[in-house]
Amino acid sequence: MKIEGFELRRVAMPLVSPFRTSFGTQTARDILLVKAVTDAATGWGECVTLPDPIYSPEYTEGAVDLMKRFLIPALAAAEVTDAPGIGEALKKFKSHRMAKGALEMAVLDAELRAEGRSFARELGSVHDRVPCGVSVGIMDSIPQLLDAVGGYLDAGYVRIKLKIEPGWDIEPVRAVRERFGGDVLLQVDANTAYTLRDARHLAKLDAFDLLLIEQPLEEEDLLGHADLAKVVQTPICLDETITSAQTAAAAIRLGATQIINIKPGRVGGYLEARRIHDLAAAHGVPVWCGGMVESGIGRAANVALASLPGFTLPGDVSASDRFYATDITPPFVMRDGHLDVPQGPGLGVEPVPEILDELTTSVEWVPAA
Amino acid sequence: MKIEGFELRRVAMPLVSPFRTSFGTQTARDILLVKAVTDAATGWGECVTLPDPIYSPEYTEGAVDLMKRFLIPALAAAEVTDAPGIGEALKKFKSHRMAKGALEMAVLDAELRAEGRSFARELGSVHDRVPCGVSVGIMDSIPQLLDAVGGYLDAGYVRIKLKIEPGWDIEPVRAVRERFGGDVLLQVDANTAYTLRDARHLAKLDAFDLLLIEQPLEEEDLLGHADLAKVVQTPICLDETITSAQTAAAAIRLGATQIINIKPGRVGGYLEARRIHDLAAAHGVPVWCGGMVESGIGRAANVALASLPGFTLPGDVSASDRFYATDITPPFVMRDGHLDVPQGPGLGVEPVPEILDELTTSVEWVPAA
Amino acid sequence: MKIEGFELRRVAMPLVSPFRTSFGTQTARDILLVKAVTDAATGWGECVTLPDPIYSPEYTEGAVDLMKRFLIPALAAAEVTDAPGIGEALKKFKSHRMAKGALEMAVLDAELRAEGRSFARELGSVHDRVPCGVSVGIMDSIPQLLDAVGGYLDAGYVRIKLKIEPGWDIEPVRAVRERFGGDVLLQVDANTAYTLRDARHLAKLDAFDLLLIEQPLEEEDLLGHADLAKVVQTPICLDETITSAQTAAAAIRLGATQIINIKPGRVGGYLEARRIHDLAAAHGVPVWCGGMVESGIGRAANVALASLPGFTLPGDVSASDRFYATDITPPFVMRDGHLDVPQGPGLGVEPVPEILDELTTSVEWVPAA
Amino acid sequence: MKIEGFELRRVAMPLVSPFRTSFGTQTARDILLVKAVTDAATGWGECVTLPDPIYSPEYTEGAVDLMKRFLIPALAAAEVTDAPGIGEALKKFKSHRMAKGALEMAVLDAELRAEGRSFARELGSVHDRVPCGVSVGIMDSIPQLLDAVGGYLDAGYVRIKLKIEPGWDIEPVRAVRERFGGDVLLQVDANTAYTLRDARHLAKLDAFDLLLIEQPLEEEDLLGHADLAKVVQTPICLDETITSAQTAAAAIRLGATQIINIKPGRVGGYLEARRIHDLAAAHGVPVWCGGMVESGIGRAANVALASLPGFTLPGDVSASDRFYATDITPPFVMRDGHLDVPQGPGLGVEPVPEILDELTTSVEWVPAA
Repeated sequence: MKIEGFELRRVAMPLVSPFRTSFGTQTARDILLVKAVTDAATGWGECVTLPDPIYSPEYTEGAVDLMKRFLIPALAAAEVTDAPGIGEALKKFKSHRMAKGALEMAVLDAELRAEGRSFARELGSVHDRVPCGVSVGIMDSIPQLLDAVGGYLDAGYVRIKLKIEPGWDIEPVRAVRERFGGDVLLQVDANTAYTLRDARHLAKLDAFDLLLIEQPLEEEDLLGHADLAKVVQTPICLDETITSAQTAAAAIRLGATQIINIKPGRVGGYLEARRIHDLAAAHGVPVWCGGMVESGIGRAANVALASLPGFTLPGDVSASDRFYATDITPPFVMRDGHLDVPQGPGLGVEPVPEILDELTTSVEWVPAA
Repeated sequence: MKIEGFELRRVAMPLVSPFRTSFGTQTARDILLVKAVTDAATGWGECVTLPDPIYSPEYTEGAVDLMKRFLIPALAAAEVTDAPGIGEALKKFKSHRMAKGALEMAVLDAELRAEGRSFARELGSVHDRVPCGVSVGIMDSIPQLLDAVGGYLDAGYVRIKLKIEPGWDIEPVRAVRERFGGDVLLQVDANTAYTLRDARHLAKLDAFDLLLIEQPLEEEDLLGHADLAKVVQTPICLDETITSAQTAAAAIRLGATQIINIKPGRVGGYLEARRIHDLAAAHGVPVWCGGMVESGIGRAANVALASLPGFTLPGDVSASDRFYATDITPPFVMRDGHLDVPQGPGLGVEPVPEILDELTTSVEWVPAA
Repeated sequence: MKIEGFELRRVAMPLVSPFRTSFGTQTARDILLVKAVTDAATGWGECVTLPDPIYSPEYTEGAVDLMKRFLIPALAAAEVTDAPGIGEALKKFKSHRMAKGALEMAVLDAELRAEGRSFARELGSVHDRVPCGVSVGIMDSIPQLLDAVGGYLDAGYVRIKLKIEPGWDIEPVRAVRERFGGDVLLQVDANTAYTLRDARHLAKLDAFDLLLIEQPLEEEDLLGHADLAKVVQTPICLDETITSAQTAAAAIRLGATQIINIKPGRVGGYLEARRIHDLAAAHGVPVWCGGMVESGIGRAANVALASLPGFTLPGDVSASDRFYATDITPPFVMRDGHLDVPQGPGLGVEPVPEILDELTTSVEWVPAA
Repeated sequence: MKIEGFELRRVAMPLVSPFRTSFGTQTARDILLVKAVTDAATGWGECVTLPDPIYSPEYTEGAVDLMKRFLIPALAAAEVTDAPGIGEALKKFKSHRMAKGALEMAVLDAELRAEGRSFARELGSVHDRVPCGVSVGIMDSIPQLLDAVGGYLDAGYVRIKLKIEPGWDIEPVRAVRERFGGDVLLQVDANTAYTLRDARHLAKLDAFDLLLIEQPLEEEDLLGHADLAKVVQTPICLDETITSAQTAAAAIRLGATQIINIKPGRVGGYLEARRIHDLAAAHGVPVWCGGMVESGIGRAANVALASLPGFTLPGDVSASDRFYATDITPPFVMRDGHLDVPQGPGLGVEPVPEILDELTTSVEWVPAA
């Protein structure tokens, strides 16, 4: 398969509810789509960078610059012909895994469409639908939180994740447990907001039978998480820290993680995501699929990934309407708390041309040959 | 893809040199081939069992009985439609990984042929040829050994493995090193012939700059290997012990193995073999591909596997004529110490009908629907 | 003592209550008896394989084939003359411990009968009766379970074991504890039905003062059990995992087992069972004797084994009428919750010829000389 | 002190010898200088990024974009008034330590100049001159290497560092040792070119009494370095891996590093560099100062840092003429193998206006207020 080039397309997808960051309020998610054009088929990838380098060092404008300046020229120079060749050809560039993963995803999709094989089959799917969890942000008040959680439970979500931070942790969790009972699958996500000196405070969460505490400490603090796991009984689940199968292996060996949140973009793509799944399964470490507020393109691949056998916990795999009134693909609709795994060739979904055009803010063609 | 059934075919392949076992001398390898017949394509698998349960608990007659009595009926009952479904459907039957792996291989080959995808691409190949190592058995005398090794080096093999056992270890290794120099890649294979009380004896091998000592102790003795690794500086490489990604993960965590010999049949097939490769790579543990005196069918898949990036040591991947004057497929011919990785759909090779017919000793059809 | 040969006899013993497996409902247990004929005496062994390879890789038809094809010829070739010689002569064949153990048992029985020595004396018995525990399967409802447990307690069983699986664990245990009080000796058996991700769920069993949790994880997952033991306070007891004194030693060193269930067939016979007993005693690890729904032949030997000093917990050593309305030997009858240890030569019991003949479905003679 | 803004200036400094990368040959180093303009004084910083993201994820164009888009606006928003406030205000942006460090350096220089305090005093200097080591690249031949090393020794350098890679390691080291004797302080730098499977190969370097092996494995492979350190006796020294005092602490605890190369840019600036120095000293771990082919601006600060008490090994602190015929500051001249530590306010050196103007390729003003 000969890769002819990549179309880098920016799409502004209006959000159901505005998203606050320190740089202001965003009413749309600026998504970077990558279309791989090959002589066999075209494929779609989604770069999960955020506008700012605050979740990871990568950000969307930076990813575009990097793809044009280094990554795509390197693919052209190496004459890469399939998805496994992408990682190999880009290895010399340090990190930047989201950008690399988007290119690999697009090429993999093209390859699979040409072969008539689904992402689900490629990755090793064993389920035809996956349970949906939902991530609930930090709210202004506990009543507001209880309303939100109640709404998601009514909608059918089978697992609730509460974002926590110092000052918004024990009480919100207690309130949700008390209101909705002990049977609700509940977990918390700290996004690196704590330090090891909070260990005994975090141990107070042990009373609430949580599935896990996600990424309590800084992403580089592997040993800190191992130390924390000795104090806190609730399982530690790493997110930001796990950037590769290698870091996953180290985290497991050190006892720094008991569960892993796999976000394919963060680890450089779906092939590395599968490797982490396999590694974790061999070590008896459960995994689940995280989300980056993807459009239907990224969502399709995440749903396929989440149907692998080691994904034994519900992921942040929500319906399209959790974030977007209009998705660029036919929307993912939750039925009985689950999403169906797409079974068509490649991602099994494609952008709807008119919607895509309407939401597109820029398109750029970067030849790879 | 609908699996219609499996043809179990026994083939007697005349050996270039007779093979001695405690049950007599064998002049032919009794190979069990499995042909998966599906509505999309047919595929080939090879069951690597030996006639006797002396390398593993499995043996060829037992594998045939098990397939007919349990495995194929279970696949029929579960209505399995692709290769990843095989392992899932057969999980309830304990062990018997060679038999399971042969069925999975045949179904995977059928699936890939239908899609036009190669085993190499499926597994994640990054090289188009792989270096060949050779395994040299225990000989009657050291001069005889030196002749054999010299012959293999002249033929172009890039790595020599010497079988060792108590009484045939230090001196043969010393003789080969002295005759052929320090640059020859050299390793030894003990096939469980030692016990932990031989630790200091085995440490004498440290003087000869060996790549590894393969499976010195009993296959179930994980802790023994970890103990041995503290005494012996030559890296320990497990073979028989590694029956799954799970056992590989445990062996790595315990420090019982520094290198892994992956034999796909022993671990239940090529999909699990890939998982072990990925796990080992994440832990920085090199792997290489072992052999079970396969016909061209199994050899084709092994060569594809050995072209994955973590296979950083030459495998027991030898040319067809190392064992067989006539292979059932077009023979694998060594060029410059390497074999080419087949690139055609599925295994990329097929039995030559006339040769296959001539060597076939029995054929049985087992419906799976 | 010269071994002349073995009679392999299949017996269909009607079960008191039908036994469901995935292959249908069984109303009789298909038992493989082995009679060793020697020039000094004849002895009886029982092969504890099940019809399907779902508890262990062995199954009854496979055991018969293996004995005829490999094991008995190897004994003939080695001219084995006593029971300790059996294991040595069969060591080269990997695993298949139930088949090997049945042959050893028969030869040991012949030897002991010729000498007028009892199994109890041979193994090192210190009690003349042993307490009886009972294993209670998974039921359709909790009331049904409570009825069954009540019946066994009324019958005098001194220890109750409940089979558990995901969905049938905390509530049944709670119900039994609540109904029958805290003084009942209670334990659970998971038969590998859980994974490490269930650790905290299993820890909920800590509230019920159980003697032990038997084999919660896969049999090969030694490190997983060690990890689990750090989360769960109820002692872990391994069953399937312990296939030899060597694996028992490793499990103890790794902290993977705090108690051991010794099933003589699973470990290759009564001589290895005694070695595991000795090892465990040395490490301060309690053991108890498991069961495989044996006839009176196997039961006699189990009762003798269970009278060794380290068997400090009641075993699954129940009266014959727990499973069989008619046993092939005079039945083992429980008195005051105990069975008497046979004191006659060898097993101390023999099949009743008429009953044996009536239940026999096939007999085959395999010469060993 | 009020920060008014930053001038971002690109300077093309002609190299004494051309520099080859995979993107072509560079005859000039493209240096990004940062001038902080405050109401108290102006200060100079140097961003040590390379043009390509191959040593670290950062690259020069990316750093410029990041400073303008995120970093400088964030400093403005936080109304930062001194150097310690920089890191705090930029903490929310992940990684990008070279860019952050350049801003901090410029503000620190401005602050110190206003106070009349030297960098040396600020950091805790205890020496007024520092010994010079030199880093020698990979050459086309060993004679060429010996010529180069001989030249540097003649020039007075007191320590030689050889770059190594697979294929250029044992023999060049042996040749240098043999030619120049055992008294030459010698070390090697692998820049992540090896993997754990090369452990025993690297151990062959133990024969040459090297000071250290620098960064043999991938920067993220902390556990791999710890494993390697058990096989190789030459001390391991981490470079790329150490991105913060936190990672330094983890590396020390895990036994992954016995010596640390501190590059201030890589760790986010001179204040963090001092913290790593302090941490390492507390653990008894020697440190030395690395280089990034800095101009006189960066060199001045490095020399000051290298005069702290824990810098017990000579650094890659060479004279200006090692790289540049003309420096933008008055050149650093080696005397008796040492450079003098500047003692004037701030860096103690300033660009020579005419030279700076001549070499400048672009200037951009970014207001911070």
